[in-house]
Amino acid sequence: MQKKLFAEFFGTFWLVFGGCGSAVLAAAFPELGIGFAGVSLAFGLTVLTMAYAVGHISGGHFNPAVSLGLAVSGRFGWNDLLPYWAAQVLGAFAASGTLFVIASGMAGWSPGGFASNGFGDLSPGGYSLQAVLLIEVVLTAGFLIVILGATSARAPAGFAPIAIGLALTLIHLISIPVSNTSVNPARSTGVAFYAETAAVGQLWLFWAAPLIGAVIGAAIWRYLLATPDAE
Amino acid sequence: MQKKLFAEFFGTFWLVFGGCGSAVLAAAFPELGIGFAGVSLAFGLTVLTMAYAVGHISGGHFNPAVSLGLAVSGRFGWNDLLPYWAAQVLGAFAASGTLFVIASGMAGWSPGGFASNGFGDLSPGGYSLQAVLLIEVVLTAGFLIVILGATSARAPAGFAPIAIGLALTLIHLISIPVSNTSVNPARSTGVAFYAETAAVGQLWLFWAAPLIGAVIGAAIWRYLLATPDAE
Amino acid sequence: MQKKLFAEFFGTFWLVFGGCGSAVLAAAFPELGIGFAGVSLAFGLTVLTMAYAVGHISGGHFNPAVSLGLAVSGRFGWNDLLPYWAAQVLGAFAASGTLFVIASGMAGWSPGGFASNGFGDLSPGGYSLQAVLLIEVVLTAGFLIVILGATSARAPAGFAPIAIGLALTLIHLISIPVSNTSVNPARSTGVAFYAETAAVGQLWLFWAAPLIGAVIGAAIWRYLLATPDAE
Amino acid sequence: MQKKLFAEFFGTFWLVFGGCGSAVLAAAFPELGIGFAGVSLAFGLTVLTMAYAVGHISGGHFNPAVSLGLAVSGRFGWNDLLPYWAAQVLGAFAASGTLFVIASGMAGWSPGGFASNGFGDLSPGGYSLQAVLLIEVVLTAGFLIVILGATSARAPAGFAPIAIGLALTLIHLISIPVSNTSVNPARSTGVAFYAETAAVGQLWLFWAAPLIGAVIGAAIWRYLLATPDAE
Repeated sequence: MQKKLFAEFFGTFWLVFGGCGSAVLAAAFPELGIGFAGVSLAFGLTVLTMAYAVGHISGGHFNPAVSLGLAVSGRFGWNDLLPYWAAQVLGAFAASGTLFVIASGMAGWSPGGFASNGFGDLSPGGYSLQAVLLIEVVLTAGFLIVILGATSARAPAGFAPIAIGLALTLIHLISIPVSNTSVNPARSTGVAFYAETAAVGQLWLFWAAPLIGAVIGAAIWRYLLATPDAE
Repeated sequence: MQKKLFAEFFGTFWLVFGGCGSAVLAAAFPELGIGFAGVSLAFGLTVLTMAYAVGHISGGHFNPAVSLGLAVSGRFGWNDLLPYWAAQVLGAFAASGTLFVIASGMAGWSPGGFASNGFGDLSPGGYSLQAVLLIEVVLTAGFLIVILGATSARAPAGFAPIAIGLALTLIHLISIPVSNTSVNPARSTGVAFYAETAAVGQLWLFWAAPLIGAVIGAAIWRYLLATPDAE
Repeated sequence: MQKKLFAEFFGTFWLVFGGCGSAVLAAAFPELGIGFAGVSLAFGLTVLTMAYAVGHISGGHFNPAVSLGLAVSGRFGWNDLLPYWAAQVLGAFAASGTLFVIASGMAGWSPGGFASNGFGDLSPGGYSLQAVLLIEVVLTAGFLIVILGATSARAPAGFAPIAIGLALTLIHLISIPVSNTSVNPARSTGVAFYAETAAVGQLWLFWAAPLIGAVIGAAIWRYLLATPDAE
Repeated sequence: MQKKLFAEFFGTFWLVFGGCGSAVLAAAFPELGIGFAGVSLAFGLTVLTMAYAVGHISGGHFNPAVSLGLAVSGRFGWNDLLPYWAAQVLGAFAASGTLFVIASGMAGWSPGGFASNGFGDLSPGGYSLQAVLLIEVVLTAGFLIVILGATSARAPAGFAPIAIGLALTLIHLISIPVSNTSVNPARSTGVAFYAETAAVGQLWLFWAAPLIGAVIGAAIWRYLLATPDAE
């Protein structure tokens, strides 16, 4: 169990350090910056790479909503849920702190939103609470369907990290302008406390929406899609 | 059969929500937008991810032209064609409606073309009906050859969703400026009814051209390329 | 044999139509264009997708230099070389003509270089003949090493189209500014005859350099890298 | 052993020629340049492609820090470390020289930093020595965890080059603005001697940080993550 928690810790560290790091350090670099497309790719590759590296140890969740959805679907033990959540949140905090130290190494830098998620004034495009809530629920539900389907017994073996990692890239390609893309409460929590903005006050939504979406996605998979031999 | 139709519904929902969603929400975001390349990647990843997730349930068509081409090639039953088409079109409508609600959550937003397909004045680059017709036929034919070849018995197992998804990315990299890229009548239909433009009046072409192209591609595969042991 | 030649014809058609098509139609679209990075991705994906689709029929060369290199390495019969070259060049011409018709469907369009390759004044960045010659030789040699290595008996099965397709993406990411990237005489030939420039007069280099590079790459593989059990 | 060293020589040549070549030749091309995202993709694809091509010959390190980390983890013989380092550095020098000749083929070109790594004034974003040191250590440690995990006995076979190559893409997406991204002392050494800047004077850091990071990553894998049956 200890190795599983280490794997979730390091995996979530990598997700937040890589995804939010690319956003903070590289997205808006003058002329040559990677933009939202580059950040989307980075988030997806954190999961693709660590799922191959440590997925065989912990399952490679790196995300409290994923752990919840897997528990709902019957593939993950409810007893392990809170320890996994703790390891994921700790990994996210460690990554955010490390990223903050590095970003501070540029003269005149200020954290701003620090890649945090938000709605209303804190949404990159100024989207309403309702729009942010809806897109986070829909995308997390879709994410869980991809995860549960790509790791089912009938899917081709070994490809799941590609499907799941690139699903996260896809999710970011759609939704960075709306919510700055969470679908992962640990990722939202880690950076919110370093932002200069009121991101912490909106954190509740980035726990609620991904968790609700994950339950919906897991239920869709279990009751509408899964065949008996697929589990 | 019911699970197959659910899989086609959710898969096509994901394709339209993800592909058209990235176009509507993220393509032209100031400075950091994902551009046509990001939209191309998003469309391809919708298929790559859902083909791994539910391809083993329904075959993972998510596209009326693909279903038709597979029927022509002898790999899909003609009796299932209309139910599949219905599930795909319904999924596309559900995705378009959801996307419309989210996009409306930005103050001052107006739908414009809403990622619909078009020729003449409704083509992103102002391309003629003839050019749009030709490119949609050629690209759908090529798409079907990739699909039929990559899922043939002689192709390496498990890789088909990568080949097929990235073929859709490739198709968009080429043709967004010309037709805004359809190759999928369900995708075109879903968004056309939400556009402020006259996109609905041009929908006939985005049923005709992909379906013709799919038949051509399936025929090329069946009569010029397939070896007896490949089916 | 006939099916092999059809496969090479359609595969090279796809390569030229997709790669050069993305360059002609989409690279420089105002604001949202895909740029050299999108064109690089498109070229690579043409090979990745068609290698999965028809690679099991013809070997998936789609390139006279690749066919030559494989013959030098002992993996392809010398008797088949000229028929393969003919099918590839015909596929490239068919693609170039189709692309020309489509591109002409935009009012006021003129072909310009039409994605042709060149040195000196015809190099995108104005690079000299020597620089263009050297980079085409080096990159084609590397391309052949990737092809021969990734398809060797000791490499993991099924992944070669990914490695080879993405090698072509890599090659374009490096060299579009220098030579507009050939490494493929058929691709260069097809479009040169449609260019308004003097591209045809420089075609000799885009046969000579890739063919020389392919021989060098095949020789490096055969004499310096290959182990007895790898063939 | 000789073939292994050739494989490391050519693989590192490809890494430096492709990664640094895309940076020098294509990143900042007016309007259509590939930017940091394109350079990130290029670096990753050099490793992905050559790991499939010659990874089965030499292990596919192409990086002194990787060789050291693998030795620390017990997967690579200490006796082979120095020969591997020599082959890697020689490959990097050969690539840098070839690239210099090609880049010089554009009238009026001057090498500038020539894709070298640096801190302070030589960091693309002006980041401090401390920030550069920290990010290079963290990213190299993560890189080793991905390498060791994705090649462990419990990871799905054949996918490691995808995970490892795309990990290098991810690493560049994060850190080009900070250090111009090394995580590879051979890559840093090859180009530094061609730069017009004082890059050579900062080379010590781009040996120290990646090597320290590799040892940390290998230790984390060995003591915190690896299960007995994973080696």
